[in-house]
Amino acid sequence: MRIDPTNDAFGHALMDHLEGSDDAFEIIERDDGFIAVSSRAGRYFDDASDWGALGQAALRAVRGRVLDVGCGAGRFALHLQGAGHDVVAIDVSPLAIEVCCRRGVRNARVLPITGISRRLGTFDTVLMMGNNFGLFGGAARAARLLRRMKHITAPDARIVANGLDPYQTTEPAHQAYHQRNRARGRMAGQIRMRVRYKGLKTPWFDYLFVSLEELEDLLDGTGWRLAEAVEAGASHVVVLEKV
Amino acid sequence: MRIDPTNDAFGHALMDHLEGSDDAFEIIERDDGFIAVSSRAGRYFDDASDWGALGQAALRAVRGRVLDVGCGAGRFALHLQGAGHDVVAIDVSPLAIEVCCRRGVRNARVLPITGISRRLGTFDTVLMMGNNFGLFGGAARAARLLRRMKHITAPDARIVANGLDPYQTTEPAHQAYHQRNRARGRMAGQIRMRVRYKGLKTPWFDYLFVSLEELEDLLDGTGWRLAEAVEAGASHVVVLEKV
Repeated sequence: MRIDPTNDAFGHALMDHLEGSDDAFEIIERDDGFIAVSSRAGRYFDDASDWGALGQAALRAVRGRVLDVGCGAGRFALHLQGAGHDVVAIDVSPLAIEVCCRRGVRNARVLPITGISRRLGTFDTVLMMGNNFGLFGGAARAARLLRRMKHITAPDARIVANGLDPYQTTEPAHQAYHQRNRARGRMAGQIRMRVRYKGLKTPWFDYLFVSLEELEDLLDGTGWRLAEAVEAGASHVVVLEKV
Repeated sequence: MRIDPTNDAFGHALMDHLEGSDDAFEIIERDDGFIAVSSRAGRYFDDASDWGALGQAALRAVRGRVLDVGCGAGRFALHLQGAGHDVVAIDVSPLAIEVCCRRGVRNARVLPITGISRRLGTFDTVLMMGNNFGLFGGAARAARLLRRMKHITAPDARIVANGLDPYQTTEPAHQAYHQRNRARGRMAGQIRMRVRYKGLKTPWFDYLFVSLEELEDLLDGTGWRLAEAVEAGASHVVVLEKV
């Protein structure tokens, strides 16, 4: 997925918030026409004190040198570099990375998750917060990326990822979407969506929501295992360690 | 415009809020692809104490028997009937009217603004809050409806309407939209839009934003004149009286 100034809906919302707008909202549109407010752009700027139990669980799990995947406005990167970690923050959105730089993230780069490689160095933690487990996109890509993450991390490294169990919903439109996905041979929680903000629309992309059971299936054969899971409602933070 | 359960996006957001959802947002999509959060559904349930200077100005202007046009969740209707006014509340959204009934609005009906007639009786005030001056839709329809409102109201009746000056913006997308409208022979602030909520989309409809100068032009020949205008930022409440 290529994001440039003409379609950087997400980054534009972050930039507007940084520049003082108090009504910037990230809107998510799914390919069945379902639309929703993902969050106020301001949430991507929240301090650690606002992150709740899952954010705190993630912080406790972080070790050493950190790759922050889908860093957004840099809330985790800023907090962790302030705590002495060496952090490389990546995001597919050029404006998000500009926001990170302006906020003081020292090493922030425009890079999609599919662009990670040994050129970034070796990491002790791969961090995927803000539902960014979803960036694995689907089963095949998750397997491929998990194997690549194995190669760019230390032997005792961990992946700390925040995800969402798609089955903990009573919304009929979501349940119908799961059925539709299954009928098409996709995972039920494999959402095809785009971000919209003002007149901007990102390209459509896949975002993967899985239950913890499905997550364990995904890990099979990748060299990673589920070491810890903290749940809060439908959300979870998982810590993956090498087998 | 016909609204039924398959496209009642606005009413569905109100109903979800009534039934306890705290994250129901009304999303507005314009025909150039611009999208924005109009407001939290909960705003349509706010008490008079939250209405600000424009809401208070509107309340002070209300007299006698009231036609509440585009009543939404019934916030004005409830307040005014509580203060002793006879209120007829109309909205094109069936679910909005159901919300009104469940909240205690005594006379709420599914009716578009184009459906008003003497069958509703005679009114002392026509109330159009929540930017509902916009329901006039365009210059020709405004003239037609203003003349009809003259016929269904008492000699000393007034229209109390809340609108938005479209020119008080620095948003390039809005300015480009104004240009596009002018090139098509439409008024600059004549917005073609629809409401989206979850999987629902209303039909496209025209919603009219005018400056106070444009408003005075619109009134010409309709039998109404601008008696009072209160402004707050780009928003205004106008009181129209018969010539």
